[in-house]
Amino acid sequence: MKKDRTAGGWLSEPAATVDGAAAEAARRRQQQLTKPPGSLGELEDLAVTLAGLQGRERPRLERVRVGVFAADHGVAAEGVSAFPQAVTAEMVRNFSRGGAAISVLCRRLGAELGVINVGTVTELEPLAAVVDRRLAAGTANLLREPAMTPEQYVAALAVGRDWVDADVDCELIIGGEMGIGNTTAAAAVAAALTGLPVAGLVGRGTGVDDAGLARKRRVVEEALARHGCGPDRPDEVLRCVGGLELVALAGAYVRAAQRGVAVLVDGFITTAAALAAVALHPGARPWLLFSHCSAEQGHGALLEALSARPLLNLNLRLGEASGAALALPLLQAALALHADMATFAEAEVSHG
Amino acid sequence: MKKDRTAGGWLSEPAATVDGAAAEAARRRQQQLTKPPGSLGELEDLAVTLAGLQGRERPRLERVRVGVFAADHGVAAEGVSAFPQAVTAEMVRNFSRGGAAISVLCRRLGAELGVINVGTVTELEPLAAVVDRRLAAGTANLLREPAMTPEQYVAALAVGRDWVDADVDCELIIGGEMGIGNTTAAAAVAAALTGLPVAGLVGRGTGVDDAGLARKRRVVEEALARHGCGPDRPDEVLRCVGGLELVALAGAYVRAAQRGVAVLVDGFITTAAALAAVALHPGARPWLLFSHCSAEQGHGALLEALSARPLLNLNLRLGEASGAALALPLLQAALALHADMATFAEAEVSHG
Repeated sequence: MKKDRTAGGWLSEPAATVDGAAAEAARRRQQQLTKPPGSLGELEDLAVTLAGLQGRERPRLERVRVGVFAADHGVAAEGVSAFPQAVTAEMVRNFSRGGAAISVLCRRLGAELGVINVGTVTELEPLAAVVDRRLAAGTANLLREPAMTPEQYVAALAVGRDWVDADVDCELIIGGEMGIGNTTAAAAVAAALTGLPVAGLVGRGTGVDDAGLARKRRVVEEALARHGCGPDRPDEVLRCVGGLELVALAGAYVRAAQRGVAVLVDGFITTAAALAAVALHPGARPWLLFSHCSAEQGHGALLEALSARPLLNLNLRLGEASGAALALPLLQAALALHADMATFAEAEVSHG
Repeated sequence: MKKDRTAGGWLSEPAATVDGAAAEAARRRQQQLTKPPGSLGELEDLAVTLAGLQGRERPRLERVRVGVFAADHGVAAEGVSAFPQAVTAEMVRNFSRGGAAISVLCRRLGAELGVINVGTVTELEPLAAVVDRRLAAGTANLLREPAMTPEQYVAALAVGRDWVDADVDCELIIGGEMGIGNTTAAAAVAAALTGLPVAGLVGRGTGVDDAGLARKRRVVEEALARHGCGPDRPDEVLRCVGGLELVALAGAYVRAAQRGVAVLVDGFITTAAALAAVALHPGARPWLLFSHCSAEQGHGALLEALSARPLLNLNLRLGEASGAALALPLLQAALALHADMATFAEAEVSHG
């Protein structure tokens, strides 16, 4: 693991270890349940994986924390989004009042929803369920200058770390994001970290037209050329072309791995944050599960770069942690089947 | 619609009509919710489709009936399954006692699980939640003779009809199946109705080896050649190479369409039954939603033949309605988002 002094010492703490014996016990149990071996497909692998992460043959997902990290992006000035920048703060209010997609989904799931303001342009009044960790009025315009100062970068990572540390008495964390312009930052981070062509990683985000899409591509290409940072310096990539919420998410993912809490990754931006987390700390990878492949161009390539198999493919492109929240019942069902199905012996069913 | 006198008059009753105005109202509502238009992908289409089927702008899925139809297959004598035929009845007991995958999933969902014995080889003692409609000790061996007599065929259709008619005070029905050997019958029905090559429709079912797979293919090819029935006579296809549970499912699907209740189709065998239902009654098609594409070879081709877009693709191949039960939370989430998200106006969020 690369030591990153810029970000303080905590990033170099080791990730928690995966319990291979518990995973193996879960695998053996799967073979005994009253179904043809392998017939529950990906759900069998999920149960085995979570057994390894939780260190018990029958893992559970009763308490899930959802945190949506919100921040603005100076690059919005380049006309890269279909929505005005004011929407970031307006949506934070909508999360708080319970009207957003993730609000509805968390109510259904009985999951706790927290919103972390890492840097909206608009200053926000105190809001229920919103934590004020506003580091700046958005990032600087990454086309013109580094998105963050070194201090802001370190502080944004710590926002994610602190959110995880605030409560690790849970079985899963889900991170989401809100930030007008953040598909541009995410595409830039992803291109810098993977070396994949920019054209394939820049998509329509919330729905820019062809001209907007062309602008986004040009902005990302020029920004990468200007800052010139590559995969050997993930910290500089994140600082120069990332976003405050994206960096906070990367910090949260690394911290979750260090604390031994599994993560369910959401869409394009959070997958770019996952890529960054693994670049900063390769030990984080086993703790990351992937919920869906979104409609955003480039998401599939990022998932592939992480060797990730997402559960859903429903043409979602909303963010906010909504795709992860939609996939959660599948994980919970996988564990219920694993724990509660009868074995061949218990049910007296003839076995092969 | 083809009139089928063999099956009695009920098959020719018209399907309920879809409410285009309600669907249109739902489509307008989707455009007003606080998210980029289209960003909930398939979930938006689901909400609109269900609005049309239920005739209200905000549809709901509170009461769901799950029925698993069980029967045996004479063709099991040809060595086409990895499991012995006794397993069909043993699994019916397992459903009844709550130990099977579908039992676990129905408990999680709060959905009522009924099991309908349409014809197990083994006579079964009275069992909780199991309805005895046993028409025969399994079908005849479809390789040697028609699987059913004309009377058995008509009676099997009526089993499905009666199960639907018993309680239409629900918003969705899910049909499942259990029957050792039934992927062979389903592949034969599908090949006869679609004209697609047998090799692409015959898969490993519960897990036959290469020799078993070769036997299955030969059995299906020879059976189709022997009986010689094609897509112009879906009734004869079902009678000669179908299964009692498969025919009951086709009857249930047609009846659900006639009674105006939406159906969530499960895996390979139920999709073959859906294909048969649409062949018997094209008006049934709009009432059929599709939950997943399974690992069973040929399922994808059947879904394509029905122009169906399944929600999940998780390498499931269990049957029992398990894939549909796993997809149900996605439908329910789609409707919760549709009903409960704030509009741009309500949330005072800037709109594009």
